[in-house]
Amino acid sequence: MTTLVTGGAGFISTTLIGRLLGRGDKVLALDNFSRGSRDNIAGFIGHDHFAFAQVDLSDLIAFRAAVSAHGGMGPVTEVWHLAANSDIPAGIADARVDLRDTFVTTFNTLEIMQEIGAKRLYFASSSAVYGDLGDKLLTEDIGPLFPISAYGAMKLASEAAISAAAEKFLDVALLFRFPNVVGVPATHGVLLDFMRRLRQDRCVLQVLGDGTQQKAYLHVSDLVDAMLLVQARSTARLDAFNIGPTDLGVTVRAIAAETVAVAAPGAELRFGQGNKGWIGDVPRFAYSTAKLQALGWRPSMDSLTAIRRAIREIAAQECVT
Amino acid sequence: MTTLVTGGAGFISTTLIGRLLGRGDKVLALDNFSRGSRDNIAGFIGHDHFAFAQVDLSDLIAFRAAVSAHGGMGPVTEVWHLAANSDIPAGIADARVDLRDTFVTTFNTLEIMQEIGAKRLYFASSSAVYGDLGDKLLTEDIGPLFPISAYGAMKLASEAAISAAAEKFLDVALLFRFPNVVGVPATHGVLLDFMRRLRQDRCVLQVLGDGTQQKAYLHVSDLVDAMLLVQARSTARLDAFNIGPTDLGVTVRAIAAETVAVAAPGAELRFGQGNKGWIGDVPRFAYSTAKLQALGWRPSMDSLTAIRRAIREIAAQECVT
Repeated sequence: MTTLVTGGAGFISTTLIGRLLGRGDKVLALDNFSRGSRDNIAGFIGHDHFAFAQVDLSDLIAFRAAVSAHGGMGPVTEVWHLAANSDIPAGIADARVDLRDTFVTTFNTLEIMQEIGAKRLYFASSSAVYGDLGDKLLTEDIGPLFPISAYGAMKLASEAAISAAAEKFLDVALLFRFPNVVGVPATHGVLLDFMRRLRQDRCVLQVLGDGTQQKAYLHVSDLVDAMLLVQARSTARLDAFNIGPTDLGVTVRAIAAETVAVAAPGAELRFGQGNKGWIGDVPRFAYSTAKLQALGWRPSMDSLTAIRRAIREIAAQECVT
Repeated sequence: MTTLVTGGAGFISTTLIGRLLGRGDKVLALDNFSRGSRDNIAGFIGHDHFAFAQVDLSDLIAFRAAVSAHGGMGPVTEVWHLAANSDIPAGIADARVDLRDTFVTTFNTLEIMQEIGAKRLYFASSSAVYGDLGDKLLTEDIGPLFPISAYGAMKLASEAAISAAAEKFLDVALLFRFPNVVGVPATHGVLLDFMRRLRQDRCVLQVLGDGTQQKAYLHVSDLVDAMLLVQARSTARLDAFNIGPTDLGVTVRAIAAETVAVAAPGAELRFGQGNKGWIGDVPRFAYSTAKLQALGWRPSMDSLTAIRRAIREIAAQECVT
């Protein structure tokens, strides 16, 4: 029996697939390399239980053909759907990017699962489904859900489609609402952005907004631990879980200072105006992970520790590439 | 300035357009006649302030051309987006029906609005976004939102897309979560279904399920009143409103009895098993309209009165067609 991972050459999949192979799964990874890369899966190529196909999952016919071509691996019983557009500003500039890469890929994943009889789905949703609810504590049952980015909107739309599919044919559908995740191989995000700017100008780091934006960050290793723990312990047929650290997060100001300390000691920090970096950026939120903790999970790193570790990992990654 | 009504030849639009013309709007109605019909707009044809085009709104190019062709009416400043697949079982059999007719039409409506600078959107959402939350009181801020039909899923997906568009370019976006709506011109629904079955067999009415399903029903005239009142009184930029009667609804058993009394007096009622009529049918819910009432709205009819009036209206409609 085979586990299908969509977006299988992406940032989080690299860690996830390592764990799935480690527990003995056969893994079929699909990716269009829009954000993922062949480098990310290089370590798995040649593994007896690993197969990869480059395919655009928004193309249902190509998707079906890619799965069918690997039918020899045995039936797909479990799907980890991680494919999405992870470039939030790109989706804000053109909502069709998120429509295609985040929503249509989900819709097609459900179509394929129904066709091949795969009935267990694990979905990478996002805290972006909550939009900006001000100071409210974000528990999984809060509303109204008014996402403020096309990314968040298409993650919520995907949750909705999965929910209807759970009523129709899925046995298990678990929705993981991701926080900001850091680690390697980093393809985007505030840390990589800061590092790259400091390479262009090692004396000044200009920060969007006033730096008071505060966010929680989880290291990718803790994120994958959490998902596998929920898979093992949750008895729900359909449920959503916030995943995140248990602290309230760190400010952009603190992240900038940590990055400078590692990558360009002595560089000056300069800040902009306002507490939103871009349209669709939620300035601050309190993210409840009580439901996840009730299953027995604890993160191994808080936000600041995760950021510090990721900065060093990314610095090492940047030296290689 | 022109008001655009999508799904303009449908059940609810017929009443809405009458009110919009009555208050002096110029109205451009678009419909693909998938569920709507030319009969429904016959009364408006020839009105100086009314124009109609048959177009499939899931086709962005055709949609754009239809709006452009009516540019002489003046700029579209307000959009009532009512186009959707209203045949819930059809969407459950094939989720692509709701994807195309309910979600893609919304996505395209937002694309067109951004292109032409229309910034006020009124959307026909649905109580189906709530799924089956058991005995919980359904207020607008409850969660989690796990719709159990493709119809509800694509209404929730539409809300999500509208929410992101509200952050990006809309001035006003009001989401009306419809209850079950009755009245004429009826194209589907339990009343029409019962009437048609009684025409085939005037002696026995077989009901799906055990008849204990209880739902709230609103007459279409009250529904349109409520939407226009919210438009006039709400100061929100983005908000959702449940619309429904203030009673807890009537059972399918009661509806069957009322229909028989009008359409086939003396016919025997027969019931099935279970309290779900079909997959995706929510058996019973308590729908809060407190937020709507706080704006000063009261329905003129409760569920039973609305059902009784609609049965008589549909009986009259059936005689004509």
